[in-house]
Amino acid sequence: MHEQEVRKIMDGVRSKKIRIGEAIRKLKFMPFEDLGFAKIDHHRGLRKGFPEVVFCQNKTVNQVVEIVKRLAKDDSTILATRATKEMFNEVKKQIKSAKYSEKSGTIIINKKNAINKKNAILVITAGTSDINIAEEAAVVAESMGNRVERLYDVGVAGLHRLLNNKEKIEDANVLVVVAGMDGVLPSVVSGIFGKPIIAVPTSVGYGASFKGIAPLLTMLNSCSPGVVVVNIDNGFGAGYFASMINR
Amino acid sequence: MHEQEVRKIMDGVRSKKIRIGEAIRKLKFMPFEDLGFAKIDHHRGLRKGFPEVVFCQNKTVNQVVEIVKRLAKDDSTILATRATKEMFNEVKKQIKSAKYSEKSGTIIINKKNAINKKNAILVITAGTSDINIAEEAAVVAESMGNRVERLYDVGVAGLHRLLNNKEKIEDANVLVVVAGMDGVLPSVVSGIFGKPIIAVPTSVGYGASFKGIAPLLTMLNSCSPGVVVVNIDNGFGAGYFASMINR
Amino acid sequence: MHEQEVRKIMDGVRSKKIRIGEAIRKLKFMPFEDLGFAKIDHHRGLRKGFPEVVFCQNKTVNQVVEIVKRLAKDDSTILATRATKEMFNEVKKQIKSAKYSEKSGTIIINKKNAINKKNAILVITAGTSDINIAEEAAVVAESMGNRVERLYDVGVAGLHRLLNNKEKIEDANVLVVVAGMDGVLPSVVSGIFGKPIIAVPTSVGYGASFKGIAPLLTMLNSCSPGVVVVNIDNGFGAGYFASMINR
Amino acid sequence: MHEQEVRKIMDGVRSKKIRIGEAIRKLKFMPFEDLGFAKIDHHRGLRKGFPEVVFCQNKTVNQVVEIVKRLAKDDSTILATRATKEMFNEVKKQIKSAKYSEKSGTIIINKKNAINKKNAILVITAGTSDINIAEEAAVVAESMGNRVERLYDVGVAGLHRLLNNKEKIEDANVLVVVAGMDGVLPSVVSGIFGKPIIAVPTSVGYGASFKGIAPLLTMLNSCSPGVVVVNIDNGFGAGYFASMINR
Amino acid sequence: MHEQEVRKIMDGVRSKKIRIGEAIRKLKFMPFEDLGFAKIDHHRGLRKGFPEVVFCQNKTVNQVVEIVKRLAKDDSTILATRATKEMFNEVKKQIKSAKYSEKSGTIIINKKNAINKKNAILVITAGTSDINIAEEAAVVAESMGNRVERLYDVGVAGLHRLLNNKEKIEDANVLVVVAGMDGVLPSVVSGIFGKPIIAVPTSVGYGASFKGIAPLLTMLNSCSPGVVVVNIDNGFGAGYFASMINR
Amino acid sequence: MHEQEVRKIMDGVRSKKIRIGEAIRKLKFMPFEDLGFAKIDHHRGLRKGFPEVVFCQNKTVNQVVEIVKRLAKDDSTILATRATKEMFNEVKKQIKSAKYSEKSGTIIINKKNAINKKNAILVITAGTSDINIAEEAAVVAESMGNRVERLYDVGVAGLHRLLNNKEKIEDANVLVVVAGMDGVLPSVVSGIFGKPIIAVPTSVGYGASFKGIAPLLTMLNSCSPGVVVVNIDNGFGAGYFASMINR
Amino acid sequence: MHEQEVRKIMDGVRSKKIRIGEAIRKLKFMPFEDLGFAKIDHHRGLRKGFPEVVFCQNKTVNQVVEIVKRLAKDDSTILATRATKEMFNEVKKQIKSAKYSEKSGTIIINKKNAINKKNAILVITAGTSDINIAEEAAVVAESMGNRVERLYDVGVAGLHRLLNNKEKIEDANVLVVVAGMDGVLPSVVSGIFGKPIIAVPTSVGYGASFKGIAPLLTMLNSCSPGVVVVNIDNGFGAGYFASMINR
Amino acid sequence: MHEQEVRKIMDGVRSKKIRIGEAIRKLKFMPFEDLGFAKIDHHRGLRKGFPEVVFCQNKTVNQVVEIVKRLAKDDSTILATRATKEMFNEVKKQIKSAKYSEKSGTIIINKKNAINKKNAILVITAGTSDINIAEEAAVVAESMGNRVERLYDVGVAGLHRLLNNKEKIEDANVLVVVAGMDGVLPSVVSGIFGKPIIAVPTSVGYGASFKGIAPLLTMLNSCSPGVVVVNIDNGFGAGYFASMINR
Repeated sequence: MHEQEVRKIMDGVRSKKIRIGEAIRKLKFMPFEDLGFAKIDHHRGLRKGFPEVVFCQNKTVNQVVEIVKRLAKDDSTILATRATKEMFNEVKKQIKSAKYSEKSGTIIINKKNAINKKNAILVITAGTSDINIAEEAAVVAESMGNRVERLYDVGVAGLHRLLNNKEKIEDANVLVVVAGMDGVLPSVVSGIFGKPIIAVPTSVGYGASFKGIAPLLTMLNSCSPGVVVVNIDNGFGAGYFASMINR
Repeated sequence: MHEQEVRKIMDGVRSKKIRIGEAIRKLKFMPFEDLGFAKIDHHRGLRKGFPEVVFCQNKTVNQVVEIVKRLAKDDSTILATRATKEMFNEVKKQIKSAKYSEKSGTIIINKKNAINKKNAILVITAGTSDINIAEEAAVVAESMGNRVERLYDVGVAGLHRLLNNKEKIEDANVLVVVAGMDGVLPSVVSGIFGKPIIAVPTSVGYGASFKGIAPLLTMLNSCSPGVVVVNIDNGFGAGYFASMINR
Repeated sequence: MHEQEVRKIMDGVRSKKIRIGEAIRKLKFMPFEDLGFAKIDHHRGLRKGFPEVVFCQNKTVNQVVEIVKRLAKDDSTILATRATKEMFNEVKKQIKSAKYSEKSGTIIINKKNAINKKNAILVITAGTSDINIAEEAAVVAESMGNRVERLYDVGVAGLHRLLNNKEKIEDANVLVVVAGMDGVLPSVVSGIFGKPIIAVPTSVGYGASFKGIAPLLTMLNSCSPGVVVVNIDNGFGAGYFASMINR
Repeated sequence: MHEQEVRKIMDGVRSKKIRIGEAIRKLKFMPFEDLGFAKIDHHRGLRKGFPEVVFCQNKTVNQVVEIVKRLAKDDSTILATRATKEMFNEVKKQIKSAKYSEKSGTIIINKKNAINKKNAILVITAGTSDINIAEEAAVVAESMGNRVERLYDVGVAGLHRLLNNKEKIEDANVLVVVAGMDGVLPSVVSGIFGKPIIAVPTSVGYGASFKGIAPLLTMLNSCSPGVVVVNIDNGFGAGYFASMINR
Repeated sequence: MHEQEVRKIMDGVRSKKIRIGEAIRKLKFMPFEDLGFAKIDHHRGLRKGFPEVVFCQNKTVNQVVEIVKRLAKDDSTILATRATKEMFNEVKKQIKSAKYSEKSGTIIINKKNAINKKNAILVITAGTSDINIAEEAAVVAESMGNRVERLYDVGVAGLHRLLNNKEKIEDANVLVVVAGMDGVLPSVVSGIFGKPIIAVPTSVGYGASFKGIAPLLTMLNSCSPGVVVVNIDNGFGAGYFASMINR
Repeated sequence: MHEQEVRKIMDGVRSKKIRIGEAIRKLKFMPFEDLGFAKIDHHRGLRKGFPEVVFCQNKTVNQVVEIVKRLAKDDSTILATRATKEMFNEVKKQIKSAKYSEKSGTIIINKKNAINKKNAILVITAGTSDINIAEEAAVVAESMGNRVERLYDVGVAGLHRLLNNKEKIEDANVLVVVAGMDGVLPSVVSGIFGKPIIAVPTSVGYGASFKGIAPLLTMLNSCSPGVVVVNIDNGFGAGYFASMINR
Repeated sequence: MHEQEVRKIMDGVRSKKIRIGEAIRKLKFMPFEDLGFAKIDHHRGLRKGFPEVVFCQNKTVNQVVEIVKRLAKDDSTILATRATKEMFNEVKKQIKSAKYSEKSGTIIINKKNAINKKNAILVITAGTSDINIAEEAAVVAESMGNRVERLYDVGVAGLHRLLNNKEKIEDANVLVVVAGMDGVLPSVVSGIFGKPIIAVPTSVGYGASFKGIAPLLTMLNSCSPGVVVVNIDNGFGAGYFASMINR
Repeated sequence: MHEQEVRKIMDGVRSKKIRIGEAIRKLKFMPFEDLGFAKIDHHRGLRKGFPEVVFCQNKTVNQVVEIVKRLAKDDSTILATRATKEMFNEVKKQIKSAKYSEKSGTIIINKKNAINKKNAILVITAGTSDINIAEEAAVVAESMGNRVERLYDVGVAGLHRLLNNKEKIEDANVLVVVAGMDGVLPSVVSGIFGKPIIAVPTSVGYGASFKGIAPLLTMLNSCSPGVVVVNIDNGFGAGYFASMINR
């Protein structure tokens, strides 16, 4: 679209209807991205299939509905994270095809089929209380066309459950490991399996876990080099990043 | 300079030596700022007289000399902050006109004359140990063409010294108030005089002043609304901001 | 008023009805400000047009109504910040002209017309969740006679929206930049536009944003020297300081 | 009581009904305080007039009533701090003379008359939101027989109000200064008046006051040497300590 | 001195050489404290015998010598705290009577004889490593005319040593209790003896004592109400406050 | 069970129905613990009598019921900690023998008789508000077959109550000491009695106790070497560890 | 090797020289990994080309030399990070082919040729002081066979330098972005280019950057979803992870 | 000794040379422990073989020598921890039999033979940098008569090394697990082996390990219930506690 405007200016220059000085001035005041960000648009092209994302926390139901409706006009996939059931119900009235993942609080519209069937993203949790955050990661990765596997409640207190699932872990391309409390699971999994791990600390816990600071620090200090970290409870970010690197 | 390149492309379009598609492609790959950031350049024009700044901490003597030499080719004012005496000595060998403010550790080259004589920036400290940071602020503001006054060691334990200098304070347009330990001085000065204050916490102190956190928090929580805060020991930032608003 | 008391003592001295020792003793015990703080009063004169401010948080509805009624006796502008709808309703019963800014939770009485039309204060937010705090800044600045512009939801994830509004930013004299989460927007805006920026961290976010500590630290550590910071969520202080320096 | 048991043993020794070895063994196994802590009991004698204190927070209404009833059997003064209205109502049913200080949430039984009329304890607050905590200090000090004066809402933003009350401050023997947010008031009062100050940080505030940490640090770092500090919101401790030293 | 200036103005008024308006204007611009702060001066009179204090940390040897020399002109007691041996040597060259307390790093000049022999201040430490800070408190209190007793190394690990010194503790009027690591000693002493305690946390310790934060928190949270706290390692403040209340 | 599978493979090898290469491959893919963790299983045998534990916080009532039902199939003792009354009621419907400890919020099923009658675990609290956490420790230790004694509300403010119970303390083998606020009790008890102490900080308190950080730090920094620490409010962990070492 | 032992046991079973029970017992006591961890070994096979890593900080020169010598016996690539010049000199005496990257303090032995020439890892820094850490990342990634590009000193204060290098950024597959102080660069780069970013906070800075905490928090809270974070100054971890995902 | 004094008083009572009132008064003023603390002395008897401990950090060489000499008069075992080589050399001059553990910085005098040969204490470290602290624990436990085993450098990055030493771990009665950085090792060891673990966080690490806070939090939050924690780098405390419970 914008390229056409540039072309129009060029046509004007060529046909001498627009003076060169005028053309330069026009170019300078054109919406920024149309010129300079062309490559970025190109990049966006590469990101085809990546969803539009709405972060619903701190938004009203109305705001969420309005934003989702506007985005839904193009046919792109839409993810509304941290959405309440009530938000979903209102969205559903407007967009019949909307689906809701209750565990993760995510509304999904126009979910793409898995386009990356060979490589799986495996989402692992230490405890059952970490599942909500894990599901956010899983749903996000699925909505971005990935095959996603799950392995829940395999924390260090039940290390044998982890080891009993070696095949599942070996089969995956990228691991998202979600843990609260002491947050040791990513270190352990990395030490054993050597896969790239996106570690997600959760605010689950009490006392000196300080709403996720303890596992966050554990993960940042992991002695295993294959571990990177996202924000506390940031299942979305983990699922998104896993999708970016699961090629 | 870059505008000439754009003009050349336009000439090519007008003379039909360059196809429009080709012209668009070229524009897209040109250095970014030449087009979109023209207005910013214009803004830079407005900032004439603002110094080039080199932050010397964590740099080697050689690095500082190299950077300063490069910048000194244009005739602009140069400030090298957090510079050691040794750095100055080496710079001095290259640039005879370089001056050094020992208290603040600042090298100044091509200092402008005060262009803003009517409005003064007043730099105040609570104690004598805050003077180094205060001098950084003062030297920076002077190098940016301001009249700068100083009022040192007027902390709350000697409140009468502050009140004895009412005229000096009333005369100023902007205050930079530098304090460590409890950091109460900006609140007090603001409560009495109502001038805009840029508060600078210093790392001077011991025990629970935690290298400047205590005065930083005090200043951020100031019950007087005319107080804004910069980083701990950031005399440079305070002097710079004071210059921006001292019009 | 108090000057009359001083004059009466002087009359007594002159007419020898009061001994000099007695006069000195009386002066010493007079209310402080009448003598020493005269200049401060004078300063207050300079501040004409500045509003009376009531911080409603932690006050009862009754307390707010009482304070506002008392202040409303003079014709000065009154700002009641962090006021609930309920507080407003009760104030409204007493003072018909009271207005309420719902987004910012501010009651305004006797708002002055913009007396500073040329220079604008521009209030920018990174996200939609920062708007409440931004509105507090905007409403405060407007009530102090400033022309205020708004530019919301232009965070770094949508940097092109920021760049598309270059004219608006260039046109402003002072920027108030409000951001939660990573708080990077003030650094970016300062790096591009070089305007004086009052940065307001917000408590919006989750996880390791720690109710505003993360953006607060980001802003304090801004590598761009034109950024000063106020307390977390302190829209009022930002709007007030912006007004002080928007001359 | 216990002394009688010791005497009985001694009688047994003297009358040779108890062997010395047996006597020593018995003494060793007697309740500890009866022997070794005699001086402490004596000390308790000195503390006559000091109230029995019940900290009600985290206790049930029933627990409070039971404890108060038990203590009320001796005629001593009883203070129940952090008591809800509901707690008071239930206590009142049992002990008709119980009184309630609503502002401070304190139940008082058998309050002593001021026995220390000459020396006053002055309780000062920075803001109106600090009054609850200040009242706790005041009520405690009153219940311990002190003359207590109050000076509220004289924070640094209204420093003249403080200075207008010089006589009140000079008249006091000990100051309790209560402040939230930036917590600068104790430093300022100490800097001007040089009285011993017990500083009480309050959790009033928002943002980077961190529920009282900011004023706590300010007070601990006070550059004025006559300032000591108690825990955040600890009006009780301040009033108690003030009473101990108000002789 | 200043009173004479006021008197001169009054004489002028009485003799009608100065108009009343002129007189008022003159009074307003006179150095602040001369009028309004008279009572404070009076208070200073009360504080006779209180030393002039120089905090030497962060000062150069020269600065210390200069300040001490200037203060030594009046005959008042001078305390230079946190002074190095080198500072003392240079001071000694100028002021022959200067004495040095090596343990506490304090220079004392013109120390007063104990004027308060009946009431003792007792300085207690938990360990031997706390003695430096304790000595600072002791030396300060002595220089302010107090009888000071010492009881060192009676920490909780050797509780019997504390209890073996009951008489010494009962004999004191005010206790300064100095402790690092877990900082439990003030709570324990207060629980047993009920004396007013000024608690001084020290930065002695390792690991999670965090340079004094752990004992600071312990002391602030003391369940015994007779404990107030000063800054980490602030022996000076403790000795000073103890002197203020040891009447 | 698994051993049978291994045996079957061996039989196959012996009878030459399975080739050796095949056997090795099979062994490698067998569930991990069956082979390598045999010794651990053996160890589990040693731990006979140790309960199955369900941590109910952050779980739904349904989840708790499901997990408890599944575990109850074997005859082992089950502890469900942090269980609400509602959770218990639902569990009770399924498992008639379930019992509930209201103070500690623990459901117990198939509690073993005390198998360790000689050695007692003594659970001590500083205040009455620490009792919930203490009961969790006590109930856990009892369910693991220990004789458990209790000594509550013997904090430092009432040190004589502690000393009056010397026999009880001397009689115990392991102490669990639970304290909030200043957390000094474990240091004191250890200093006097020299027993191994598991210290449990509680989140009881206000102000600078920071939800348990203050007592946690106190305990970690205990100057008495016989003190180890568990997480804030972790009564379960303390009771469990006490049981492990009470042999 | 170990497989041979298993095979030997199997042979014994087949030839009936070893009883099945005996065979099972032997398997159970064999070194763990030989059986259960076979798949992990297989995985290690996949990791061929990954270097052996020695973290030299906190090790003596001797320790480093010993470890490197031992590892050098196989022909694998060896990386010794955080190595001093002195360590290198000693290593060099033993292993002639050892090379040293002075900027990053890394010793490299048997570096592999780039095996992944198409996809580049781009290492970006905000300032010149971040280069040491960036070089650690770059050297690690190179030693793991990657093509590595560098783009240094393109922080937000010089945003145009970043934008002038669009091609370089677009060309890369994975970005490692290294920044201290405010740490905003990863957010900005992610907002513009949408590439997967491994963000490395550095301890460069002063005041409230708190040795890297400020940029760490900024990065964790990045509003752009394509950003993951490693520990402060952990260039090694970033380079290693980038290599893992640069396929 | 003291018992004789009590006996003398009793004799006086019996022989009627001392009046009963007088006897009671005398008992009250006797050194505390002689009566009330008899049982504690008894307890000390139980602790026979426990060493006298001198914590040398923050002490001068002279102080250490003096204390050690005094303690060496009885024949008891002496441990001087955190002792420098220089301290040892001076001690050695006085006490020929003194031995020095260089790794742990411990001086040992009169070490007892292992009296507890059956039960071993096993000291485990995650890395080589943790060995100093581990040796402190080991040396302390040995000096208290325990058989001590060591298993070093078995961190999670090399989990197989841990598993290869199953027998050693199973053989031990108590484990001391020492780890810095992420501090995950105690959780993992507890999860697999179920032994009582005393976890020691070390200050080894960089970045967000914050001098031991990260592993401290990890250990406190361990999801495995058999883990208790001592202070950062507190090898002494761990070794001491392990000895207390290794019966």
